Amino acid sequence: MSIREFSLKELAKIAEGEITGDAHLMITGFAPLETATSGDISFLVKAGQADKLATFKGSAVIVPLALEEATVPLIRVEDPYLASAKVHQFLLEKPFEAKGVHGQVCIGSATELPREISIAAFVSIGDRVKIGERVTLEAGVVLGDDVYIGDDTTLKANVTVSEACRIGKNVTIHSGAVIGSDGYGYATDKQGFHTKRPQVGIVQIDDNVEIGANTCIDRAAYGITLIKSGTKIDNLVQIAHNVLVGENSLIVSQVGIAGSTTLGRNVVLGGQVGVAGHIVLEDGVMAAAQSGIHNIQKAGAQIGGSPALPMKKFGRAAIQYGKLPEMGKDIRRMKKEIAELTKSVKKIKQGEGYE
Amino acid sequence: MSIREFSLKELAKIAEGEITGDAHLMITGFAPLETATSGDISFLVKAGQADKLATFKGSAVIVPLALEEATVPLIRVEDPYLASAKVHQFLLEKPFEAKGVHGQVCIGSATELPREISIAAFVSIGDRVKIGERVTLEAGVVLGDDVYIGDDTTLKANVTVSEACRIGKNVTIHSGAVIGSDGYGYATDKQGFHTKRPQVGIVQIDDNVEIGANTCIDRAAYGITLIKSGTKIDNLVQIAHNVLVGENSLIVSQVGIAGSTTLGRNVVLGGQVGVAGHIVLEDGVMAAAQSGIHNIQKAGAQIGGSPALPMKKFGRAAIQYGKLPEMGKDIRRMKKEIAELTKSVKKIKQGEGYE
Amino acid sequence: MSIREFSLKELAKIAEGEITGDAHLMITGFAPLETATSGDISFLVKAGQADKLATFKGSAVIVPLALEEATVPLIRVEDPYLASAKVHQFLLEKPFEAKGVHGQVCIGSATELPREISIAAFVSIGDRVKIGERVTLEAGVVLGDDVYIGDDTTLKANVTVSEACRIGKNVTIHSGAVIGSDGYGYATDKQGFHTKRPQVGIVQIDDNVEIGANTCIDRAAYGITLIKSGTKIDNLVQIAHNVLVGENSLIVSQVGIAGSTTLGRNVVLGGQVGVAGHIVLEDGVMAAAQSGIHNIQKAGAQIGGSPALPMKKFGRAAIQYGKLPEMGKDIRRMKKEIAELTKSVKKIKQGEGYE
Repeated sequence: MSIREFSLKELAKIAEGEITGDAHLMITGFAPLETATSGDISFLVKAGQADKLATFKGSAVIVPLALEEATVPLIRVEDPYLASAKVHQFLLEKPFEAKGVHGQVCIGSATELPREISIAAFVSIGDRVKIGERVTLEAGVVLGDDVYIGDDTTLKANVTVSEACRIGKNVTIHSGAVIGSDGYGYATDKQGFHTKRPQVGIVQIDDNVEIGANTCIDRAAYGITLIKSGTKIDNLVQIAHNVLVGENSLIVSQVGIAGSTTLGRNVVLGGQVGVAGHIVLEDGVMAAAQSGIHNIQKAGAQIGGSPALPMKKFGRAAIQYGKLPEMGKDIRRMKKEIAELTKSVKKIKQGEGYE
Repeated sequence: MSIREFSLKELAKIAEGEITGDAHLMITGFAPLETATSGDISFLVKAGQADKLATFKGSAVIVPLALEEATVPLIRVEDPYLASAKVHQFLLEKPFEAKGVHGQVCIGSATELPREISIAAFVSIGDRVKIGERVTLEAGVVLGDDVYIGDDTTLKANVTVSEACRIGKNVTIHSGAVIGSDGYGYATDKQGFHTKRPQVGIVQIDDNVEIGANTCIDRAAYGITLIKSGTKIDNLVQIAHNVLVGENSLIVSQVGIAGSTTLGRNVVLGGQVGVAGHIVLEDGVMAAAQSGIHNIQKAGAQIGGSPALPMKKFGRAAIQYGKLPEMGKDIRRMKKEIAELTKSVKKIKQGEGYE
Repeated sequence: MSIREFSLKELAKIAEGEITGDAHLMITGFAPLETATSGDISFLVKAGQADKLATFKGSAVIVPLALEEATVPLIRVEDPYLASAKVHQFLLEKPFEAKGVHGQVCIGSATELPREISIAAFVSIGDRVKIGERVTLEAGVVLGDDVYIGDDTTLKANVTVSEACRIGKNVTIHSGAVIGSDGYGYATDKQGFHTKRPQVGIVQIDDNVEIGANTCIDRAAYGITLIKSGTKIDNLVQIAHNVLVGENSLIVSQVGIAGSTTLGRNVVLGGQVGVAGHIVLEDGVMAAAQSGIHNIQKAGAQIGGSPALPMKKFGRAAIQYGKLPEMGKDIRRMKKEIAELTKSVKKIKQGEGYE
């Protein structure tokens, strides 16, 4: 992971921040506070943790505006977490290095390759495939017939993209992911035999999407399964046929989304969440890990639990859940007490005296 | 996805339905109601939704018997969902096209290939493998030694079938699936070190099974892990060693079935269900998504929740779960009320007057 | 799975047990009690099940010390489950057979191969890779640049190990597993766009680890994601960036562990467990299947449920959960009863007589 060398001034421009200290200081690396050494720039998310700088061994730090000075040069920004990501990316940036097409690949007919490309060994590409400029296909990648891959996209080792699926620009798909496997759709007869419903649609992945290792996105029954631009999907996620995921959503590992469900933009699904089919999660819905979502969720809803409840309600119910045995005991005791009270009151009513 | 051309009469035969309208009308495609154009046949599941036909732009529709006529030609059937699947499959049917064996494959010794076969680039086949007629092995498929693959079976890109496993006829295994990885079995000593129990059994997949992308089916410790005919397994499912899945079961995405568990026929497990080891789910058991099943389930049982309960009970409990905080409050208030009542009654009993 | 031939005496040494019967008896195979035939050694875990030996058709049995004799020769040991695993492994042991390097592989520059190695077809190895003695790389394996693989390690078909990751000695990684995919880390701006945080760390897998099929272990953001020696990970598990798993832990299928979480040694996580990020599960923590763990867990804690509770508490709460509808009814009825009692007591207090 070679890194480039820049002045603090140049990095402050990337970070959209203000410099405190020597603007001509040269930065050669990026590291977290704890492990930074001479030449490294680092970052501090909260001004309240400024005491962490006491043992800092690097050269400069990206800090919140609220932190006005320190013993090291600073770049002061509104959001150090975001600014440091941009600076780190910038330091690692390098021009695309076209390695060309390895000798041991298999390329179908009517497939045209761009000028600048890196195709590793044992890549198999179908017929009539279109591949953009500066695409990287690592070893073992398989592209079916009629696949489209946009510019600057990277498919890591052993990724499969099945026929006719369309991948946008600047997309990264991690190893073992499968794009365009058949949707899971059957019609069952009276004897219990299942007839497959042909899955003749495609998957379309828009620009700037990232897809995790061994994640599966099924092709549509008809039409498209669609992942819109900027969405980031983690490893081992299942996205079923005809799902639509809006822009800039975050789908954490092991989530499963059933068929024909629509997610808005900036939806966030925690790890292992399950979403039922044919529902809508509107813009900005956030679901806690392991939620089970069965109903439409309004924009901005924050939910948790299985079946999912509004987050606050779930939080309170979960606390109460641990107290269920106690509640059971309380109820049994109260039943007895009420029965005794009822008896006493009855006796009193009947004028049978007080012992 | 080229399609063939047939008269409505021919399709009515496949659909086992009756024609209303021109039996000689030629059909050239299949599409859902909303997107059908001239030449397409479509389908309507419920007679009550016949108003959807008003804007229909296709040529004919498969409808329920209850719908007796419309402005377009009809094929009237008992189950339009099933009949349309059959018609769509029929329209897509084409004779097996043997592409032969690609130049860049690796085939072991004593492995005999059939006359009609399609083996793509970078497929690796072990020793003593037996492959049936009209088998398709896509790019990157790996078959271990002594594997058996039945007629008309398709293994999509990057599927792995490990040594000695047996795949039946007309099976489809989607990309990245792993058949015959070692079962997870260890013996632990007093120091906490784990000794692996050798996993020397196999996996057997019977005819007409479909297995989803990146699904894993482990080989038996001894004997076989068995998936019986007609069963359909979705993506990212885990089936552990020595599991037996009966005929025509449906196992939805991300289900996990632990070792030595037996499923009957026509069992349906919703997404993300977990099933404990060494138990039996009898014929026709249905489990809602995210269920956790720890005990034997009788034939036809419908269950949900984790740990799983009978479905109706689970439904009611889940509703009540959301009311837990309220229940807690109720209990606290009732305790106070009972305490006060008890005090009052005691006072009355003691004859201490009424204020 | 060829097997070697040994005397009962030799096997008793491996099993660390005592022989009852003919020490010179030759054993040629291993099988469970039910399927053993002549020449096979088998095992019985509990002395109380000795009646199973009545129909035994094999030649000898590994039994608990408490079983002092039987109609067949015995090896009596403290822990037959463990001893039989060792004996079975011993019977299957064979010297490493170096198959050499297949003709159709791709090997980068400055990569040195050891004398004894098996590299199958369509394996792709990057630059500056170091591979130990007696390593097996099955077909379709991809190793990135600067990867290190220790002695006696086996990577099954289609495994991917990304650049700079380090795999120890005697490790087995099953098919489709992905080691070193990018961690899932983004910084989000005010418009909701996500900027990727570069993931520049590695994955290190220590000695004697086993990793299941299609499991994913992400590289660290900085530093390492670490799996310590002797840990066994099942299929389809997700281990996020900067996780540390201690020695000899057991992580069952479909578990997900979020970023920067630390597990101690001999931690056991049941199937489909989810663990939140940035927490610690101390030595020996055991979590039941489908648990959702959000907080630090003290050494030896046994937990279950989502959110997780101490196991006993969870067990009682889960039973009570099924009774929630009944509890709801109880509460409604008690409310009424209390209201009536209150009314009655009020009347009594007001001296309005007793009917």
